[in-house]
Amino acid sequence: MKLASLAGGRDGRLAVVSSDLQRAALASDVAPTLQAALDDWARTKPALEALARELEAGRAAGSPFDPTKALAPLPRAYHWVDGSAYVSHVELVRKARGATMPDSFWTDPLVYQGGSDDFLPPAADAPFRSEDWGIDFEGEVAVVTDDVPMGTDAVKAREHIMLVMLVNDWSLRNLIPAELAKGFGFYQSKPATAFSPVAVTPDVLGGAWKDARVHLPLVVHLNGKPFGHPDAGIDMTFDFGQLIAHATKTRRLGAGSIVGSGTVSNRDRARGSTCLAERRMLETLDQGKPMTPFLSFGDRVRIEMFDPAGRSLFGAIDQRVVKAA
Amino acid sequence: MKLASLAGGRDGRLAVVSSDLQRAALASDVAPTLQAALDDWARTKPALEALARELEAGRAAGSPFDPTKALAPLPRAYHWVDGSAYVSHVELVRKARGATMPDSFWTDPLVYQGGSDDFLPPAADAPFRSEDWGIDFEGEVAVVTDDVPMGTDAVKAREHIMLVMLVNDWSLRNLIPAELAKGFGFYQSKPATAFSPVAVTPDVLGGAWKDARVHLPLVVHLNGKPFGHPDAGIDMTFDFGQLIAHATKTRRLGAGSIVGSGTVSNRDRARGSTCLAERRMLETLDQGKPMTPFLSFGDRVRIEMFDPAGRSLFGAIDQRVVKAA
Repeated sequence: MKLASLAGGRDGRLAVVSSDLQRAALASDVAPTLQAALDDWARTKPALEALARELEAGRAAGSPFDPTKALAPLPRAYHWVDGSAYVSHVELVRKARGATMPDSFWTDPLVYQGGSDDFLPPAADAPFRSEDWGIDFEGEVAVVTDDVPMGTDAVKAREHIMLVMLVNDWSLRNLIPAELAKGFGFYQSKPATAFSPVAVTPDVLGGAWKDARVHLPLVVHLNGKPFGHPDAGIDMTFDFGQLIAHATKTRRLGAGSIVGSGTVSNRDRARGSTCLAERRMLETLDQGKPMTPFLSFGDRVRIEMFDPAGRSLFGAIDQRVVKAA
Repeated sequence: MKLASLAGGRDGRLAVVSSDLQRAALASDVAPTLQAALDDWARTKPALEALARELEAGRAAGSPFDPTKALAPLPRAYHWVDGSAYVSHVELVRKARGATMPDSFWTDPLVYQGGSDDFLPPAADAPFRSEDWGIDFEGEVAVVTDDVPMGTDAVKAREHIMLVMLVNDWSLRNLIPAELAKGFGFYQSKPATAFSPVAVTPDVLGGAWKDARVHLPLVVHLNGKPFGHPDAGIDMTFDFGQLIAHATKTRRLGAGSIVGSGTVSNRDRARGSTCLAERRMLETLDQGKPMTPFLSFGDRVRIEMFDPAGRSLFGAIDQRVVKAA
């Protein structure tokens, strides 16, 4: 099942989307918003699935689905915790900052709490006040949970994964060193995050959903040119179950919590990268200095994932970087 | 105007509460929840104020208000950013961790992004899985904003403060050093936060609301004994306008965003403290080691604020520390 939030109100209007992303049917009779559906998932999921079957069979009243008009599946959420599950990427980024990475990073997940009141629609302009801040994208996969009890272990945690979606975790690289030096983590350096047009239930991914990882390439284009296509199932040191278990060590997670993978990254350099920082680090290692600049106003970033037959699974996050009004 | 969320559903049922905290009237006709009211504040605020006047005059159908049954004013929220506005406290805590504080901390606010999907009711038990984690309370003041544009300056930001409430920002001190050493800030060391029974509009505070600060003592009791009563208006290096301005440097804030002051702390030691960590630091300075232990299961923490006539303004956060089920 694929779900989207169509424009309308702060939380959008929940719709079921056909598997080919061509048609959508409003799910207002089941729940007005995706958050409302997740708040009562045991009841709403079967009803949404029934609607999805009707839509797929051409029996439900649908209308054309325009992914470029969709909001983020959750236009705002109550919890957004982003991991750094691709530890080899963390190691590279630390190198780029002139910092070393403790060995414990291979066994203890690194996460940060993100702002969740203002998620960017997948095709909305991404506004920034200054190009000097080192505007960068980060291609990621994220899952949405139901209510997860405190102290849930990594295997049990897998049962709490309700939806999967893609993320562009916009980052302001030049603000990061000073902010992290203050000791309390990211805040200004992690502005509003963008999500894919639809969130999907894990079964949509078929065999590509395995071991609480998505075993498909995350395809990133910068200004229309291929930038990277690392496989999200490879080199993901911590699976989503482990990330959720880490998150629930001292707290519950409420329904609709979003847990991110961190920047998808493969050791295989032929796969490219899903953020500029990683490419710049590799350039520094190879050529002594970064060659690829951070983003300028007008640049476009597209993030997408395809099934083995080449069909877009989540629709594209495709945004233009603009100067904030 | 005083607002509370009565039990019922994940977001409670919005009620207007009398100024003496004795009576409440459900505001369902205006908005079902406080978040819904804040989403449409220009319309709902006058309607809620009218209801509050009716309740105050004994003309609205009210019922007795039991602060121990209230939920957090926002039982869950989309954004919870907590400052460390009492910089002299930050200096002390850093000393306790054997760290020094950069001078820039006096001019550049330190904030962290908190989890906001699961706020504890003011009189609910506070559950923790282990006493070994160094369970501590932090008495704070917080404000709730409407929609705040990106790049709002500190003076303009004051106009976006809609509500004020009290906070117990539960902290797990023994988890902090290792977590901060990882570089991404707090996550496991900041479990679910508790808020006061009511949130109030700034006008309720009268002259005590000045310069975007609350000029009243924050009164903390530990197991029924006075623990501290520092004045929240004194030694608050950054006012709430400055904290909001810091928050909006790179992002908008959505309606219902909560901005915290950080642990209230006065240089005047006679005022006591609003967290154990600060008292333990002072003991270390005076006696070479901390004498006051962190909390044990069964301990109670009460946080309250009174008007000059001794009337409780927000009701009490009064929680017992318990072992998580």
